[in-house]
Amino acid sequence: MAAQKPSIPRGTRDFGPEQMEKRNFLLDTIKATFRKFGFQQLETPTMENLSVLMGKYGDEGDQLLFKVLNSGDYLKSSKEDDFHQGSKHMLKKVSEKGLRYDLTVPFARYVVMNRGTLTFPFKRFQIQPVWRADRPQKGRYREFYQCDADVVGTDSLICEAEIVSMMNEVLDNLKVSDFTIKINNRKILTGIAEAVGQEGKEAELCVAIDKLDKIGLEKVQEELMQQRGFSQESVAALQPIFEVSGSNAEKLSVLKEILKGSEVGLKGVEELEEVLKYVDLFGLANPRVELDVTLARGLSYYTGAIFEVKVNNVQIGSISGGGRYDNLTGVFGMEGMSGVGFSFGVDRIYDVMEELELWPVGTTQSTAVMFVNFDEQSQNYCLPLLQRLRNEGVSAEIYPQSVKMKKQMTYANNKAIPFVVLAGSNEIEAQKYTLKNMESGEQSVISADELIAKVKGL
Amino acid sequence: MAAQKPSIPRGTRDFGPEQMEKRNFLLDTIKATFRKFGFQQLETPTMENLSVLMGKYGDEGDQLLFKVLNSGDYLKSSKEDDFHQGSKHMLKKVSEKGLRYDLTVPFARYVVMNRGTLTFPFKRFQIQPVWRADRPQKGRYREFYQCDADVVGTDSLICEAEIVSMMNEVLDNLKVSDFTIKINNRKILTGIAEAVGQEGKEAELCVAIDKLDKIGLEKVQEELMQQRGFSQESVAALQPIFEVSGSNAEKLSVLKEILKGSEVGLKGVEELEEVLKYVDLFGLANPRVELDVTLARGLSYYTGAIFEVKVNNVQIGSISGGGRYDNLTGVFGMEGMSGVGFSFGVDRIYDVMEELELWPVGTTQSTAVMFVNFDEQSQNYCLPLLQRLRNEGVSAEIYPQSVKMKKQMTYANNKAIPFVVLAGSNEIEAQKYTLKNMESGEQSVISADELIAKVKGL
Repeated sequence: MAAQKPSIPRGTRDFGPEQMEKRNFLLDTIKATFRKFGFQQLETPTMENLSVLMGKYGDEGDQLLFKVLNSGDYLKSSKEDDFHQGSKHMLKKVSEKGLRYDLTVPFARYVVMNRGTLTFPFKRFQIQPVWRADRPQKGRYREFYQCDADVVGTDSLICEAEIVSMMNEVLDNLKVSDFTIKINNRKILTGIAEAVGQEGKEAELCVAIDKLDKIGLEKVQEELMQQRGFSQESVAALQPIFEVSGSNAEKLSVLKEILKGSEVGLKGVEELEEVLKYVDLFGLANPRVELDVTLARGLSYYTGAIFEVKVNNVQIGSISGGGRYDNLTGVFGMEGMSGVGFSFGVDRIYDVMEELELWPVGTTQSTAVMFVNFDEQSQNYCLPLLQRLRNEGVSAEIYPQSVKMKKQMTYANNKAIPFVVLAGSNEIEAQKYTLKNMESGEQSVISADELIAKVKGL
Repeated sequence: MAAQKPSIPRGTRDFGPEQMEKRNFLLDTIKATFRKFGFQQLETPTMENLSVLMGKYGDEGDQLLFKVLNSGDYLKSSKEDDFHQGSKHMLKKVSEKGLRYDLTVPFARYVVMNRGTLTFPFKRFQIQPVWRADRPQKGRYREFYQCDADVVGTDSLICEAEIVSMMNEVLDNLKVSDFTIKINNRKILTGIAEAVGQEGKEAELCVAIDKLDKIGLEKVQEELMQQRGFSQESVAALQPIFEVSGSNAEKLSVLKEILKGSEVGLKGVEELEEVLKYVDLFGLANPRVELDVTLARGLSYYTGAIFEVKVNNVQIGSISGGGRYDNLTGVFGMEGMSGVGFSFGVDRIYDVMEELELWPVGTTQSTAVMFVNFDEQSQNYCLPLLQRLRNEGVSAEIYPQSVKMKKQMTYANNKAIPFVVLAGSNEIEAQKYTLKNMESGEQSVISADELIAKVKGL
């Protein structure tokens, strides 16, 4: 076979050693927090049956699913006529599996399949790649990780407060210090539509609201009247809502006034108050929660709290979001499974860490000590100590061949190895080792025990 | 849409919380060892171009690849004639990507694509799922994890000794105490074929040797003569090889005698001696390495050392294996990239841990402390301490609703939570908490500080 120049599919990525170290740091930080809050990990298969996936993400989602050809003679169930009816028709004949598109549908499927044995409330987290046949562009990949945590089987608002606490803890641990956790409640949005006489139109309202930042208040008002069928009175009645400001408590009291005629709206306010009370009781040092009446996402899905986290002063979308839903598993015939969940945008948080240079010193350093390989005698002298270091939990390696010193040092530098051990005939005669600190350049001639003591605490 | 009973594709698995905890323990143990030896992690995309995958695993492998349909109108490049020419012909028109089949080809592809920037010797490990459209059966899945470590860009035999050391360390840390690391060298097999006058026939020889355990010496001899074209003299000359026994040193000295006329055979013996010398210098407490002249695997690929690890007294195949190769990247036009690698059979090791009940106590326990939720007052009294525990690194949760005590205790039991905190009006009045040890049943009424001190060291 002729040799070929290999490549990877568009929109996919290799993660090399340095990226992996950073990604591991990021994901380990998130996982540690999930675990501390009692969440348990789940992994589902990469391929799901198309019967599970199709129809769950809208027509566009169905298009964006990667479908897997049936194995073997995949055309065996197709007739010429199927071929002529085209791709969409023939799909059923040639493919019955697709790649995971998100983590929510597989989670719902898992809950339905295991409802008899799971312990509810079920707190699960899941960190796995998903695939979408989107057109690749900067920051948008065809394979990317999602990182979800959900509690299902309870409508306790403590769960909402715990989500705030987890968002806070993860970002604190990552040293992302300047962020805002925005919170709203779907019922408040419903109530607002009611209160301005546009009952049931919160979707239209929210689409317009969503553009506030981008096009400004006047254009939004124009759009509501001209394209969304809102009356002038409704738009006027909305004015105080857009202008709500001050502390969360101040905003809530304004909302109570505006929503006083809407039962569902007041319920939303009450829920939000309860969540904020729990956040208070947790006593977070600096919870950074901000009620944002214009926060609207997942309207086809969320029924209670809505969350979103933004990093201030960094030009990037939200890095985390979520909300409460009341019917996770209805599509699979199991009604009434309510829950609340959120996810971290791992790729975006990675980019924030890069931009703000937040990776802790040593993140990309894997080996602590490298033994230089002078010659066979030196090498054999070093091997027992190498093993002793490893037994002590120190990551260590020996350059495997006695090549030029410069090459070995370059290797140590490229791998960001902080300590190098040299043992020539002088050291061997004295039964010592020269330990070189690669950053300071400092060298000391010490015994094996001293060397171990020196590098062990790193 | 009508509700449907969901399922997962044949040969795939969900990993629920308990399995994930066990799998994490297993993989974390392996990763920690890889890192300690200076190996760095790599992750490659799930989908590779079919041009990268096809032709690398033989015809059967090509068949077993899962192929992904081109997105959008996947039939757009196909004509009626293509359809009539059948599945194999039409594949080129409808699919250009497939799912990763192993970790070696993607690794080779990565090395070729990044040869300009990688630091050699490059020590990489990779733990990711792979997919094969094999017929599913007990212990054989269509999605399963592989776990590989390789050093490429050096032919130093220290690397072989380090592999022995890593296998040893991982299994020791997993408490799999009764195992054997079998080692052989491809050159010895070549030499044996030469020495018995059947030069170039080591493949035939090995296929027969491989059956020694199953069908016995006589049947193997019969097969060699009747099906593999070995002369009676060759088979007679093989006799002492099958009978080699004793310590590794004793076996090596017998081999030297048998192979004295074969240059390549003696080279193999010399390499093996050097590897065993390094293993000795590492001073492993109990290296469990056994030279096995009948060990033959990866003959189309391995050129030097060959490894295999078996757990004694457990009916399961090898749990780890590997070897040295001298041309990782030739298929991609980059010659002379030699290396040595090995892999752990994660599913099999998992099964061994299950069978021998080797999981450490607490492996499947994720939450250390659960607060019982009596009523609103009790709940609100507990929230600040809950957060304090988490701040101290203790995984803790509160049952989110004040349901019946029995239900809450069942939840704690199902999650294997070792400590439960109860705080009713008496405790609140005294500003104390009742801490209950779920295993011993022991209860004590203590202050917040005492409680933290008690559960923190777990």
